[in-house]
Amino acid sequence: MALPRRLLAECLGTALLLAVVIGSGVMAERLSGGNVAVALLANTLATVGGLYVLIEVFGPVSGAHFNPAVSLTLAVRGELSAAALGLYVAAQLLGAVLGAWLAHAMFDMSLLQFSTRPRGGTGQWIAEAVATFGLLLVILRAPPSRVAAMVAAYIGAAYWFTASTSFANPAAAFGRMFSDSFAGIAPASVPGFIAAELAGAALALWVHRGLGADSRDG
Amino acid sequence: MALPRRLLAECLGTALLLAVVIGSGVMAERLSGGNVAVALLANTLATVGGLYVLIEVFGPVSGAHFNPAVSLTLAVRGELSAAALGLYVAAQLLGAVLGAWLAHAMFDMSLLQFSTRPRGGTGQWIAEAVATFGLLLVILRAPPSRVAAMVAAYIGAAYWFTASTSFANPAAAFGRMFSDSFAGIAPASVPGFIAAELAGAALALWVHRGLGADSRDG
Amino acid sequence: MALPRRLLAECLGTALLLAVVIGSGVMAERLSGGNVAVALLANTLATVGGLYVLIEVFGPVSGAHFNPAVSLTLAVRGELSAAALGLYVAAQLLGAVLGAWLAHAMFDMSLLQFSTRPRGGTGQWIAEAVATFGLLLVILRAPPSRVAAMVAAYIGAAYWFTASTSFANPAAAFGRMFSDSFAGIAPASVPGFIAAELAGAALALWVHRGLGADSRDG
Amino acid sequence: MALPRRLLAECLGTALLLAVVIGSGVMAERLSGGNVAVALLANTLATVGGLYVLIEVFGPVSGAHFNPAVSLTLAVRGELSAAALGLYVAAQLLGAVLGAWLAHAMFDMSLLQFSTRPRGGTGQWIAEAVATFGLLLVILRAPPSRVAAMVAAYIGAAYWFTASTSFANPAAAFGRMFSDSFAGIAPASVPGFIAAELAGAALALWVHRGLGADSRDG
Repeated sequence: MALPRRLLAECLGTALLLAVVIGSGVMAERLSGGNVAVALLANTLATVGGLYVLIEVFGPVSGAHFNPAVSLTLAVRGELSAAALGLYVAAQLLGAVLGAWLAHAMFDMSLLQFSTRPRGGTGQWIAEAVATFGLLLVILRAPPSRVAAMVAAYIGAAYWFTASTSFANPAAAFGRMFSDSFAGIAPASVPGFIAAELAGAALALWVHRGLGADSRDG
Repeated sequence: MALPRRLLAECLGTALLLAVVIGSGVMAERLSGGNVAVALLANTLATVGGLYVLIEVFGPVSGAHFNPAVSLTLAVRGELSAAALGLYVAAQLLGAVLGAWLAHAMFDMSLLQFSTRPRGGTGQWIAEAVATFGLLLVILRAPPSRVAAMVAAYIGAAYWFTASTSFANPAAAFGRMFSDSFAGIAPASVPGFIAAELAGAALALWVHRGLGADSRDG
Repeated sequence: MALPRRLLAECLGTALLLAVVIGSGVMAERLSGGNVAVALLANTLATVGGLYVLIEVFGPVSGAHFNPAVSLTLAVRGELSAAALGLYVAAQLLGAVLGAWLAHAMFDMSLLQFSTRPRGGTGQWIAEAVATFGLLLVILRAPPSRVAAMVAAYIGAAYWFTASTSFANPAAAFGRMFSDSFAGIAPASVPGFIAAELAGAALALWVHRGLGADSRDG
Repeated sequence: MALPRRLLAECLGTALLLAVVIGSGVMAERLSGGNVAVALLANTLATVGGLYVLIEVFGPVSGAHFNPAVSLTLAVRGELSAAALGLYVAAQLLGAVLGAWLAHAMFDMSLLQFSTRPRGGTGQWIAEAVATFGLLLVILRAPPSRVAAMVAAYIGAAYWFTASTSFANPAAAFGRMFSDSFAGIAPASVPGFIAAELAGAALALWVHRGLGADSRDG
């Protein structure tokens, strides 16, 4: 597949992913009357369904990373060139911001805004590392025909079992910074989240090797 | 498959789809005691399950469109004749009204009624365009063996991430006009929704070409 | 497969199905603090998961009917002998009562009890006919490899879109008569439900023929 | 696959399973404002998603038992050596405790703690036996390609239809003893649960033979 098409897929897929995450968060917050558990349940189910579909739709075009930690990990393994890595990450970051704005447009909110919700502390950083570790381990070991369902199911679980509700994605952290809503994260909290995510991804690579070759590696 | 059987499948399938959407909306509203988020969660899960099954059951007969925007898009691509298109749309609209009435009969409501719930405004119209864009992109790019699961998962997400709760279907908008319930839409709001849906479908056709051939196109 | 094993599978499978339906109803009612929508959501998800697994586990042994309306329909089609039909139904009814008692034992309730919850009226009977019509149409037309997922998804939707919460099964109605709990049905209401279910099954056979041969029929 | 890698998979998989169960229980309890049904729904969905993914990821390495009752049953059937059985169980128990501690670390709780929540009585013990019986029957009879989805769906149902919320796993009971949270179990209650679980596993072996060979047995 030609690179421009792959970049279009990464940008559009990441935009739709962020629109799903932020849009369903806004809808859930508006309808739940302060019941945060019900709001997060709705946010979770929308994310699971949306992520499954986006990976199936864009996977054959670009691999459906939508996530710089995924692209970087595949580049370390030699499955993505350094040049493509830079362009993939740029497309993902651009898509993330556009997706936040699309969600705001649908819900009649002002487009440009910044989150005021701090997220951080030891527990949250451990959680982000665990969340990204698990995501990358799934991606590195899933059979290709099941990777979409497995990633979606994993993220659905991780919204609840990690204390950070599992961003697990530097582009998602970047895009959610632009939304002062249920799914937002204050800009000052983003670097800590991204550092934790990259640490989790590195750990996944290391454990993946320790577990030995599997069907995906041939 | 002979055309009368295909039209029976489109009419019956659309009727059952509307009965699922409206019936589960009525049940959810009655049981949820004013908790709208819980009501929409139930409405979502019923729609996801019902839509998945209806596409699997009627797909081999008629393609399981249940949606004039889908039939029109396939006609533009030359996969449905103009004559069949007109009959498909008629069968879908008839089915949609019958489905609304079936839901009312099951819940002991008066059969003939009209929604008094206005839906519209810039955000809602953008949302309907986005919702239908996503639905058509899924249908145009999904592998045939997964299209039922993908469409159902997509609509489940779109109930939450779009501000309009994702009608994404002119026949659904038409049928839901006939129900003064949770899932209803005031008749005056229907043209705006349908226009937005057709714009979203056109956008999907254009983006689909931009993304290039995929497995479905051969 | 030898008939005694098939009957064991029908009896055990129906018992576990009723234990799932009644047990999860009791748990949901106890935990939900009067929020009926949340209770029915939990009851629905438990039934969907349990039904999917039971059909997959017992399908290769007995066909996993667990339902006299299913066995009767297959007998009418010549796929089950009249002698086996009688034994299947007996095993299902026995299993249904044992399943209710198993649920009561797990929740420290008195084993023998009768529901005091009346269910009926025109809307409920139409709903039971529609629910059973849909279930049989799914069973008659589903590809064998997907029938478990399709039946489970269908029942999950039907819990919400039919006004009767979709018993769709004379053995379930029989067994739920023995439980004065969330999922119960008063004995006097059972004949009306069963009559509606059989009418729905007959309608499904008729519509199935109208839709023509499909992959399942070869 | 070499034994050390299989033990790493059992230890890591059981740790992540316990982190999912306990972590999502903590998150659900914190967010649900005392609505126990909503908390258990969230705990259920996280467990279903996490269990599905963990079985798919670690299955090719170790079989993904994560459960001494499963390892023991397979050893009785001659599918696991006595030496491997001992090491598997040790890895599972170690993983269970590490998983509880990981959940505590993510949620900024003190690592070392013991549950004060008693669980027991006739109903609960019957429930644990039924829960483990069902789990083992699923594992013994599921086609390998569907075992992950079937086990996850089964446990999701069993969280609700059994009065004990279905531990069904001696390692889970062991690990949850170390968490004074939603998912905890007081140490004094653990032996009763484990005895019931082993009885249920034995019953499953016996019924599995009664049902006869299936596709999995060849």
